[in-house]
Amino acid sequence: MAADAHPSGAFAALYGLEVEHASPDEARGRVAVREQVRQPAGLVHGGVYASLAESLATLATGAAVREQGRIAVGHSSQTSFLRPITEGSVHATGRARHRGRSTWVWEFDVTDDDGRLCALVRMTVSVRDAA
Amino acid sequence: MAADAHPSGAFAALYGLEVEHASPDEARGRVAVREQVRQPAGLVHGGVYASLAESLATLATGAAVREQGRIAVGHSSQTSFLRPITEGSVHATGRARHRGRSTWVWEFDVTDDDGRLCALVRMTVSVRDAA
Amino acid sequence: MAADAHPSGAFAALYGLEVEHASPDEARGRVAVREQVRQPAGLVHGGVYASLAESLATLATGAAVREQGRIAVGHSSQTSFLRPITEGSVHATGRARHRGRSTWVWEFDVTDDDGRLCALVRMTVSVRDAA
Amino acid sequence: MAADAHPSGAFAALYGLEVEHASPDEARGRVAVREQVRQPAGLVHGGVYASLAESLATLATGAAVREQGRIAVGHSSQTSFLRPITEGSVHATGRARHRGRSTWVWEFDVTDDDGRLCALVRMTVSVRDAA
Repeated sequence: MAADAHPSGAFAALYGLEVEHASPDEARGRVAVREQVRQPAGLVHGGVYASLAESLATLATGAAVREQGRIAVGHSSQTSFLRPITEGSVHATGRARHRGRSTWVWEFDVTDDDGRLCALVRMTVSVRDAA
Repeated sequence: MAADAHPSGAFAALYGLEVEHASPDEARGRVAVREQVRQPAGLVHGGVYASLAESLATLATGAAVREQGRIAVGHSSQTSFLRPITEGSVHATGRARHRGRSTWVWEFDVTDDDGRLCALVRMTVSVRDAA
Repeated sequence: MAADAHPSGAFAALYGLEVEHASPDEARGRVAVREQVRQPAGLVHGGVYASLAESLATLATGAAVREQGRIAVGHSSQTSFLRPITEGSVHATGRARHRGRSTWVWEFDVTDDDGRLCALVRMTVSVRDAA
Repeated sequence: MAADAHPSGAFAALYGLEVEHASPDEARGRVAVREQVRQPAGLVHGGVYASLAESLATLATGAAVREQGRIAVGHSSQTSFLRPITEGSVHATGRARHRGRSTWVWEFDVTDDDGRLCALVRMTVSVRDAA
């Protein structure tokens, strides 16, 4: 996919995000593991998990608030690495836990191809009036 | 630089990390802003900040514990986005705040070319015996 | 209850924790709202949410690892405040999301008497050999 | 001090906060270690560190924004426990790292009587118009 056509932008295209679902309740996506997303020991780099959660949460939140003339931008994220992923795909599924006036909070489970929990990401998104 | 030659691995080469310093006390690096690291609104994607901190902290910790036959892997990270970066470079400077037997904790300031604070990242690294 | 009899110790007695359930999978408890747990504006102090999660997670983890001669101590916590609580009780329900050799990770939902989500706490517990 | 007279409210009086300094740049306080702030193993309960940071950060932020008709309330906190404290006092010193229109971010070092770093707390405060 051309970078400028990616719904989550050029960086999402760079690390290889495939968006599977983005609604106000849930966001899902995956990244195929390839050499480019690995750190030196051969594991998927933890930055990919934080990136995935931010791309998906801001995409889903932004789509939901756009008709009110508002935009979504990242506010903060917390990632816990539980189990390494070395092959297959990285799968992320997030639920919107809070949809406030100025802040949305998402919790993502990151799993491998066998459904094992590999990381947790809490992603907080700021919602603001479009400039 | 060839991806396989990058001291922080293929993903660090992909997003464009330049390592400037990595000692047991401090780690510094930068990423030149280019289209590939942006999200749809033109800002540097927040995942880059988390990635930078993880690459630098695990590199510096790993180098420090290697002679004891130990390795460093990411444990968790917390990123707060304070001010967007849209051009120039992303600069990250981390200090090792805790060097424990099983855990090192680093705090990074992320700044822009004018030295303005743009993000904070706390990166916790697990230290383990090499397999 | 006498402070020294409280299963979660003296501080849990001070802020008023009632433990409802503590198993390797789930931990639940509550704190009755009274003047003593409020901050100046009349809301329950956010420190109570972090305290609740730590007390419950270390109690449940500690009980589960004790027979292996191991102990549980707090490692880190991340709390997001979503909606204030001003009366009734603070209810916390946590699930163990990861039970590793050296680290357990719990995610708590904090709710009010009407079941509304008021805070999220991720609590990471270190598991070590008893000294 | 009577609970209703404590500048940080009743809960701060309960766990024993002594405010030493609160300006827009820096906030400092301490808690004398006594049985009531301990968890079962005799260490100061981690909830005390999160509570301290929240009390001090919201006090200092609130004082700074009051004349603009605004108030400060807790948004989120992240605590890393590095070294236990068992006696003496818990000392917390926080710096305001970001003073935005809607969010202030503080970073606290928690130390013991010997000046050893025992915990890190990042505390984010929301700033809003008074109701």
